[in-house]
Amino acid sequence: MFLSKFIPVEDAKKIISRCLREPSTEEVGLEGAYRRVNALNVYSYLDSPPFDRSAMDGYAVLAEDTFGHSANNPTQLKVVDGIGAGEESKVELKEGEAVRIATGAPLPAGANAVVMEEYTYQDGDILKVETSLVPGENVSPAREDFSKGDLVLDKGKLLNSPELSIVASAGFDHATVFRKPKIGVIVTGSELVMPKNELEGAEVINSNHFTMKSMVESCLAVPEMFHSIDDADLVKDMFKSILKDHNALITTGGTAISKGDVVVDVARELGDVLIHGVSIRPGKPFAFAEIQGKPVFMLSGFPVAAMVQFDVFVREALLKMQGLHMEPLLIHKKAARKIPSTLGRTDYIRARIEGEKVRPLKIKGSGIIRSMVESDSYIIIPENQEGISKGEDCVVLPYQSLKA
Amino acid sequence: MFLSKFIPVEDAKKIISRCLREPSTEEVGLEGAYRRVNALNVYSYLDSPPFDRSAMDGYAVLAEDTFGHSANNPTQLKVVDGIGAGEESKVELKEGEAVRIATGAPLPAGANAVVMEEYTYQDGDILKVETSLVPGENVSPAREDFSKGDLVLDKGKLLNSPELSIVASAGFDHATVFRKPKIGVIVTGSELVMPKNELEGAEVINSNHFTMKSMVESCLAVPEMFHSIDDADLVKDMFKSILKDHNALITTGGTAISKGDVVVDVARELGDVLIHGVSIRPGKPFAFAEIQGKPVFMLSGFPVAAMVQFDVFVREALLKMQGLHMEPLLIHKKAARKIPSTLGRTDYIRARIEGEKVRPLKIKGSGIIRSMVESDSYIIIPENQEGISKGEDCVVLPYQSLKA
Repeated sequence: MFLSKFIPVEDAKKIISRCLREPSTEEVGLEGAYRRVNALNVYSYLDSPPFDRSAMDGYAVLAEDTFGHSANNPTQLKVVDGIGAGEESKVELKEGEAVRIATGAPLPAGANAVVMEEYTYQDGDILKVETSLVPGENVSPAREDFSKGDLVLDKGKLLNSPELSIVASAGFDHATVFRKPKIGVIVTGSELVMPKNELEGAEVINSNHFTMKSMVESCLAVPEMFHSIDDADLVKDMFKSILKDHNALITTGGTAISKGDVVVDVARELGDVLIHGVSIRPGKPFAFAEIQGKPVFMLSGFPVAAMVQFDVFVREALLKMQGLHMEPLLIHKKAARKIPSTLGRTDYIRARIEGEKVRPLKIKGSGIIRSMVESDSYIIIPENQEGISKGEDCVVLPYQSLKA
Repeated sequence: MFLSKFIPVEDAKKIISRCLREPSTEEVGLEGAYRRVNALNVYSYLDSPPFDRSAMDGYAVLAEDTFGHSANNPTQLKVVDGIGAGEESKVELKEGEAVRIATGAPLPAGANAVVMEEYTYQDGDILKVETSLVPGENVSPAREDFSKGDLVLDKGKLLNSPELSIVASAGFDHATVFRKPKIGVIVTGSELVMPKNELEGAEVINSNHFTMKSMVESCLAVPEMFHSIDDADLVKDMFKSILKDHNALITTGGTAISKGDVVVDVARELGDVLIHGVSIRPGKPFAFAEIQGKPVFMLSGFPVAAMVQFDVFVREALLKMQGLHMEPLLIHKKAARKIPSTLGRTDYIRARIEGEKVRPLKIKGSGIIRSMVESDSYIIIPENQEGISKGEDCVVLPYQSLKA
């Protein structure tokens, strides 16, 4: 029977993975590098911090001068200089002396500790110190973060805030990043129209236009959107022209496992259809082809099925195409009710997390957009598991985990 | 002693929350509405789906005609029409008849089920049906998603892909969203310079420029970046000019709990300093003021302390300023080693998730940027807890959960 050609989810992912090429790179200013993928191992030009510096506002001292002192038995030092942030002291501190110092300023020569302002009392150039310090106290030593020549950031890391910070601190005003893949998206369907207040005849609103565009953007890739009626010649022309100047193609609609599938037939004519049908619910009519060395993802026309197929098969691929290998964070929750499933099929069940429980939504149809809006996660039931009992532990993929 | 003025984290959050104003709204085209915050309850113009439609490629039939039939005992029907997507049939289907139908097309009058192509065999206008159907089988009924007039999306929801889909399907080509707050950021520090390969004297690289800019962007707000040396008059002028045309101000540097704090002193002169010191580690010198009715967040100059303060105090506020109430997903993991803490202080410990365990990093200094790059989460030790034993359950906030 026709079900025999449905392949397991993991097999489909492997087939897709083999068709992805290493992306090319470009240089961007660090101001524009946020959420780009670092393409080179970054070795520091600089020591960080570049010098021993004060971690507090206070006074640089010799720790030995304070040994044994306290509020009841303060020591007296002589203030010989003051150092603001960005300044250096010419003074070399000697026994019995102190230098007023701002947070972040370089420790003067001879000093080995900083006493916090709160433990001191200054009168003229006389400083009372009401505590005992150990050498190194309140000092951030030079190179405690990293040294010149250190590897500070690996290739393949997403440049989020901490990564930008470390690249800047290593002395770089730019980053070498992977190019963002350009993704052509054809939403097929003669019935589809852009949003309007009233529909005529068999018209249906093209909501896939908005979901696919934003989902590609959520993968940090650059979408270009097209619409086609269900006509093989038109779809074929679009395939050809889009594949010329895009790194990948995504389609929605026309993938049901039957005769007369416009999109999959076109793909078969132009290249190799490597997947047509995956044992997943929702979304089993997922298809995938390689055409002119480029990946072509053929998704269902039903909005929810298309979104799930995107999350399972496309998202990871678009991230890999820009050098980013992201493992979504899976968590464990107790099922709030029994969930039936079928052996040999992977289920992605729209659900809501409720504290330590997770509740599968009751809505079934793969066209029900409301179910995506009302859910915040997928319960994943792997193919070797036949449903989940109430209260049983299950694997949950929060939508939040999917964000790059 | 000076520690008495440190307030608990939750008290600080409440003070900040009281100073936030309801944002104003604007209308944007749906193409540009991704990751904006929906500002109105959305009621649908339309039914969705707008008509009973076929969920499969196949044949629209009367279920009653198929009762009791199977592969061994097929029934024969007469094919009287064909309906593609976007088409309507003029035919009214009668007993013994079938209409070829595409996925998504409107069911013809008289039909009440669809038989999948795979269970049929067509020869000329004769169709063999090798299965038995129930009424409604393979039909998506009109309004199964929602009806005209239904509330389809609440005010305050972030417009992610499913939300865009439902707004479009409800008949809207635009969305009313909250305006993005404009945030002025002053990085203070006379020692700070933009990234370069070699440093001179007491220069330090201004990495906060890059972290603060990208963190504000990660909250979907619009940053404008400034730098000032540690000079009260300059900082005061900047405060005044930025507060004129921005919704909030963030500063870094100059907040240590001591005399001579340029930034906090300026804030005190221009408005009300409501927080100065929070019992949190790292990040205790956090300060907050209200000036001309606008919130002013004063963060530490140390990169890591500033990032933690941003995550704990600023992020939630910037989201609320655009109408978004986001609860970050907290998870539970077993501590991979003992973690000391102090009663009365909330600790945010940089950590890495390792399967069911979470491992606190050994790096301590609040200037150590590497610790943010190498960690993927915070372990949060609340103020009423005195450390965590090895293997004990602890609350983990994955950085991923913080993303809007």
